[in-house]
Amino acid sequence: MVNETQHTCSASSSSRSDGGSSSGSESSKDNSRCSTPVLDADRHERLREKMRRRQDAGDKWFSLEFFPPRTANAAVNLISRFDRMGAGGPLFIDVTWHPAGDPGSDKETSSMIIANTAVNYCGLETVLHMTCCNQTKDDITGHLQKAKRLGLKNIMALRGDPAGEEWEEEVDGFNYAVDLVKHIRNEFDDYFDICVAGYPKGHPEAESYEADLRHLKEKVFAGADFIITQLFFRPETFLKFMKDCQAIGITCPIIPGIFPIQGYHSLRQLVKLSKLEVPQEIKDVIEPIKDNDAAIRNYGVELAVSMCRELLDSGMVHGLHFYTLNREVATTEVLKRLGIWKEDPRRPLPWAVSAHPKRRVEDVRPIFWASRPKSYIYRTQEWDDFPNGRWGNSSSPAFGELKDYYLFYLKSKSPREELLKMWGEELTGEESVFEVFTCYITGEPNRNGYKVTCMPWNDDPLATETNLLKDQLEKVNRRGILTINSQPNINGKPSTDPIVGWGPSGGYVFQKAYLEFFTSSEIVTALLKVLKKYELRVNYHIVNVKGQNITNAPDLQPNAVTWGIFPGREIIQPTVVDPVSFLSWKDEAFALWIEQWAKLYEEESPSRMIIQYIHDNYYLVNLVDNDFPLENCLWQVVEDTFELLN
Amino acid sequence: MVNETQHTCSASSSSRSDGGSSSGSESSKDNSRCSTPVLDADRHERLREKMRRRQDAGDKWFSLEFFPPRTANAAVNLISRFDRMGAGGPLFIDVTWHPAGDPGSDKETSSMIIANTAVNYCGLETVLHMTCCNQTKDDITGHLQKAKRLGLKNIMALRGDPAGEEWEEEVDGFNYAVDLVKHIRNEFDDYFDICVAGYPKGHPEAESYEADLRHLKEKVFAGADFIITQLFFRPETFLKFMKDCQAIGITCPIIPGIFPIQGYHSLRQLVKLSKLEVPQEIKDVIEPIKDNDAAIRNYGVELAVSMCRELLDSGMVHGLHFYTLNREVATTEVLKRLGIWKEDPRRPLPWAVSAHPKRRVEDVRPIFWASRPKSYIYRTQEWDDFPNGRWGNSSSPAFGELKDYYLFYLKSKSPREELLKMWGEELTGEESVFEVFTCYITGEPNRNGYKVTCMPWNDDPLATETNLLKDQLEKVNRRGILTINSQPNINGKPSTDPIVGWGPSGGYVFQKAYLEFFTSSEIVTALLKVLKKYELRVNYHIVNVKGQNITNAPDLQPNAVTWGIFPGREIIQPTVVDPVSFLSWKDEAFALWIEQWAKLYEEESPSRMIIQYIHDNYYLVNLVDNDFPLENCLWQVVEDTFELLN
Repeated sequence: MVNETQHTCSASSSSRSDGGSSSGSESSKDNSRCSTPVLDADRHERLREKMRRRQDAGDKWFSLEFFPPRTANAAVNLISRFDRMGAGGPLFIDVTWHPAGDPGSDKETSSMIIANTAVNYCGLETVLHMTCCNQTKDDITGHLQKAKRLGLKNIMALRGDPAGEEWEEEVDGFNYAVDLVKHIRNEFDDYFDICVAGYPKGHPEAESYEADLRHLKEKVFAGADFIITQLFFRPETFLKFMKDCQAIGITCPIIPGIFPIQGYHSLRQLVKLSKLEVPQEIKDVIEPIKDNDAAIRNYGVELAVSMCRELLDSGMVHGLHFYTLNREVATTEVLKRLGIWKEDPRRPLPWAVSAHPKRRVEDVRPIFWASRPKSYIYRTQEWDDFPNGRWGNSSSPAFGELKDYYLFYLKSKSPREELLKMWGEELTGEESVFEVFTCYITGEPNRNGYKVTCMPWNDDPLATETNLLKDQLEKVNRRGILTINSQPNINGKPSTDPIVGWGPSGGYVFQKAYLEFFTSSEIVTALLKVLKKYELRVNYHIVNVKGQNITNAPDLQPNAVTWGIFPGREIIQPTVVDPVSFLSWKDEAFALWIEQWAKLYEEESPSRMIIQYIHDNYYLVNLVDNDFPLENCLWQVVEDTFELLN
Repeated sequence: MVNETQHTCSASSSSRSDGGSSSGSESSKDNSRCSTPVLDADRHERLREKMRRRQDAGDKWFSLEFFPPRTANAAVNLISRFDRMGAGGPLFIDVTWHPAGDPGSDKETSSMIIANTAVNYCGLETVLHMTCCNQTKDDITGHLQKAKRLGLKNIMALRGDPAGEEWEEEVDGFNYAVDLVKHIRNEFDDYFDICVAGYPKGHPEAESYEADLRHLKEKVFAGADFIITQLFFRPETFLKFMKDCQAIGITCPIIPGIFPIQGYHSLRQLVKLSKLEVPQEIKDVIEPIKDNDAAIRNYGVELAVSMCRELLDSGMVHGLHFYTLNREVATTEVLKRLGIWKEDPRRPLPWAVSAHPKRRVEDVRPIFWASRPKSYIYRTQEWDDFPNGRWGNSSSPAFGELKDYYLFYLKSKSPREELLKMWGEELTGEESVFEVFTCYITGEPNRNGYKVTCMPWNDDPLATETNLLKDQLEKVNRRGILTINSQPNINGKPSTDPIVGWGPSGGYVFQKAYLEFFTSSEIVTALLKVLKKYELRVNYHIVNVKGQNITNAPDLQPNAVTWGIFPGREIIQPTVVDPVSFLSWKDEAFALWIEQWAKLYEEESPSRMIIQYIHDNYYLVNLVDNDFPLENCLWQVVEDTFELLN
């Protein structure tokens, strides 16, 4: 990721009196004075610039198209898919606009909110589709303003399907996609990157293929930045189209739309909608196997791979756009076989970065939300600026409340029945809670034979990194140190380390050991005695639900617990233990006992009262071992505490 | 230095809706949100707070009084003395006000400018004396405004000596120190910390000892923060005075003024001025040895030590104020024998911190000015804010010009004749320049038998740290790699390391290896070929006097080359290699060839033309080895370059 180009610039003397002559050095000065270390150029570029840079570097890339789900549950699943498919490294994803589904609304299934989630919570560069026919200018401006407010930066401008069977031109309305392109440029200047659709076979309603090319040119000249094409079945269809576009002066990127055939019915439906004809050689293969889904999908993958190879080999194609139909398997398979799915995506930072433009400088977060990054993003969404370089630099300290614990993108993926199986239909005491924690750590089934794959504080199985600490974690959870977050100390591993690495290559990453847990006041009393022996070496924060707070943090300063040293860069310290935000986290961490766990049981039931008791009486503790080059002493601290208790 | 106090605070829920009830946690939030990491509490406190903190901690401290010099040369020497005596760790120094010497002027010898130098360039907490009799209110307000502008924060408010032999009260004028105290509080509110003088034997002009105590109380009640006393000869004089002060309600700190007798004449003169009587037992010792300076000084040291011990042992005295008479030996000796001279002062940062309040957040600087910190402070004095946390955060990028290379606090301490002996009366070619550099590194005498103890870029002998690289430096300088700045790589040494340590204890410091040198274009050509092999690992910037600039810095970002990890703190990265400021430094570094070296010789002389040739044709190069955990590869880079040339 490091810019390795050697650049020679003749800079005049930088003294002030030289005045205008020093423009060369001034502009580079501006560049370097920005408050953001360019850890990852991707975060700071517009989509069209990323495309250009990838093309210049000879990198092949891909993008993924999704449509909005019908139900809230489907939305939760789609968002997990965004996370999983996002890991493969798409240049962007796009979300289609469903006029019938109230696409600009705040419903959790609307196009707007799904795109919002993708960009803000999943950190994906996102293109929001928007259609214009049958809509007023005000409606459209309103949608665009909302999209901008939510951090969306890219619009796919479409005409949309006519209301009736036959389309009629409206006076004074938006009749063509070009009207929408012009409107966006008029009202929002250069704010959005605009994509338009291209039809390799010509739009079905166009007078002719040539006339349709002219319409496309109009859209580009009105301000579109790139083109995504309708699906097609033969590579030569696209390559001819691309040459024809270039011949009439269309020079922007044209991205082929790839449709891996995934089933007989979906193909038929798509063909009907797009008024395309399936070539005979494909029909010949498909018809005989039309009832064998797996066979059709295998064929579809094969066909897509060979078409994509031909396109990429032509040298004219740098990116591929996939119509996923919200499915994962076929597209992922094609991408893996093409070798453009990132098997080991480099993490720019140890946590998932949000793609909202306001957050592009963000590079420090408190460690507390490590397993709940979407909650962190949600609770800080109103911040005017984000910590950059130092946590202390943030001028927007107030965390928003997380009132609705069932906010749809924070909702547990597991239904109540499943949670009860994992966490216990009936609790008999604090020890049965210890057991749940222990099973989550070990991965062993609980006494009823169910594996505990999630906890209120961790919606996913243990991170690979946490696995490094598994044995010790098991031991302490069994005895009532109920761990919810931890990291081992790391003394300078390469930034490319598959488990703990992050940031550009050629660097070194470091961590201070961290342990966060709930525990009883009895254990806290012993712990505090033990901690006196470790003063200076171990920083601690201990707080109960009422906010009684015991800490030895010097002047309540944040403690950097993850940092990286990279070639040619300032130091990056992406996670800190911040005593002040710990108090905001505390509210959330304690509330999860009630909201996610206690409420599974009847009011007044013994199980519920056990969780309520823990909520009311336990302390939340975090410990940092500052001596990162030495062996982690936190296990010894806990050991000493148990010894003192015996 | 870490605040080890365990503080328990009951913080209410931090949610917004709690409104006013959360004031407890809000205030601590403000505290931690300040943009400065409290690396060194000293930098952020007022003098009176520092005094209180030291007293509370049971620390003993000292302060040093100086008077302004008569000549510019004496000023240069006094400033070196500030640097040397500052290393012993005085809580503050103070500079007396000489009404006859135009004390508020911009002359390099004025009280105002000497105090300015102490605070800004030597980083010393400084008290400026100011007298008020025979001056208009406007004059005094003007002086105070100027002091504030220069970053002075403490005033010793004095009446001053009367114009004639007998003092007469002026109507509407300032007649007493108390008038000045009131004036400062009226006009500048609480901005300044104010000190006033106390007279353990009573002021010679006061009606009585008791009346003088009442005057002192008036001064304190008018707003003075602490008292420094006139000198005295017996500890019981001070202790009685202190008890008497306390008895009438004076509760602020009272600091005994200590006068180590350093010579017969200075004692006589001081006694005459202060109208004090020397006790018979002291006269008895001194008279017989009055012509033996050393004997008198030894006696003076002995006497001062025993008096100070008695004062400190009384438990009533926490700080001692020394009348140094601008001399070093006696005071330093007394302080060392008392054990309050800091033998190994902890450096809060690897470079000397300026004490100007505007710069209190400053914690990042470019490495280039490492040997010329006063020049850096001078060239950045107009900045509105200073880099904090990251170099890139600075919003004040323009470096002021350094036009006057003989700015008095940057002036070489050596006269022209001495420089000629060190750097050569007559140069015979570039090789004789190589030789000068080599002799500076090795410490061996040059061909004429003179040691080279300074260079245009380094006014002092080699730093201890540079000594670690001595052998390699010698080798490369002999061959025309003319080094002016370097540091070894450090992979996590304790922050208390006597050579490379800095910052609070319990931490770890790191460095990337750095090498900066002038060299010929022939060597640069070979070097660039060699550097290709080291891409990513080695960052380089190569520039000539015309500004032709070759670098592989990614996006012209700064590279952190010194950083520290401390318990309970964010990461501190006090030095960076910044490609943009390198161009400002380049102007200064090249100009020093001409201003300090070439100008020693006649115009058109061969020696001058040799230096001029180097100035016009050589390149300034800096190299950073990013792989700090491995063995420094920069020597290998240079070795490879020489090999390629052969």
